[in-house]
Amino acid sequence: MTSLNIALIHHPVMNKRGEVIGSAVTNLDIHDIARAAKTYGVSKYYITTPYKDQQQLVRELLAHWQTGHGATYNPARKEALSIVELADSLEEVISCLTEQYGKRPLIVATSALVRENTLSYAELGQRIANEEPVLLLFGTAHGLAPEILQLTDVTLPPIKGGTQYNHLSVRSAASITIDRLLGS
Amino acid sequence: MTSLNIALIHHPVMNKRGEVIGSAVTNLDIHDIARAAKTYGVSKYYITTPYKDQQQLVRELLAHWQTGHGATYNPARKEALSIVELADSLEEVISCLTEQYGKRPLIVATSALVRENTLSYAELGQRIANEEPVLLLFGTAHGLAPEILQLTDVTLPPIKGGTQYNHLSVRSAASITIDRLLGS
Repeated sequence: MTSLNIALIHHPVMNKRGEVIGSAVTNLDIHDIARAAKTYGVSKYYITTPYKDQQQLVRELLAHWQTGHGATYNPARKEALSIVELADSLEEVISCLTEQYGKRPLIVATSALVRENTLSYAELGQRIANEEPVLLLFGTAHGLAPEILQLTDVTLPPIKGGTQYNHLSVRSAASITIDRLLGS
Repeated sequence: MTSLNIALIHHPVMNKRGEVIGSAVTNLDIHDIARAAKTYGVSKYYITTPYKDQQQLVRELLAHWQTGHGATYNPARKEALSIVELADSLEEVISCLTEQYGKRPLIVATSALVRENTLSYAELGQRIANEEPVLLLFGTAHGLAPEILQLTDVTLPPIKGGTQYNHLSVRSAASITIDRLLGS
């Protein structure tokens, strides 16, 4: 288990027109990112959404795989989803982790755009190797809203693949980012 | 555009009991892996399935995003899916690429298990940098069947994350593998 925690933000995020919105929870975002996180020893994977119906959906999905039919059908999935936590907001996640670690974690944004105040993958990986508590944020839809970015300390550089195409799914972006930080 | 081509194999693959099966095509396998492939300049992304109804499903999905409503709603998705090709079998893909390049590509398996005759990510990345034609195979369900492995020249080492947990989705595994080979 590492000192890396991740959060998938569903509100506030941007839509394709640059407006601040809340997005719907996607089933495979929960599964794929939990499996990647578990593979690399991520401590907790927070799903944040303020919408009560969406929270209920996440609870039902987790219950199916943790105590329902899914738990016996696929124990590996149960294990991956055991690190998933539901939260109302980023503020709640920060508060939770601050209490757990006895200090505020380093809050790191990811973005498809170049931002100010970046930290390299190697430097962040080293800080995690040194057991510094880190909370890494991924945005759904078209990315994290400015009010989320204001709460962050640093940003990772965008994942570039040597082409002009810059539209990874959040599932791919999270998998690649975690591998860059914790893969050997 | 690089000399890397990838194929997602739906038959023959293994199920959880170690039996050889054919799997159903998953919508997000097409989207997520096409987006990751396009990001890194993968040349072609082949979806192989011998089932006519599954092939029809793939054709309808591609038509929606390439010439239907999806093409105007999301041009970036159209661009990613432009590298997707449908094939009956791995043999058909090999024959197609052999004709295109004038020689048989290096055929590389991926696996969650340690196999004989492995090539490191760095070595394979270097071969692609040298423009050697490569076809990289990903298995659906519980991985590539022995008769597929018999057609391959080498295997990449499994993606390990420093834990005992070894159950990445094929979408995550493909994204991480492509990043390791072509990411900077």
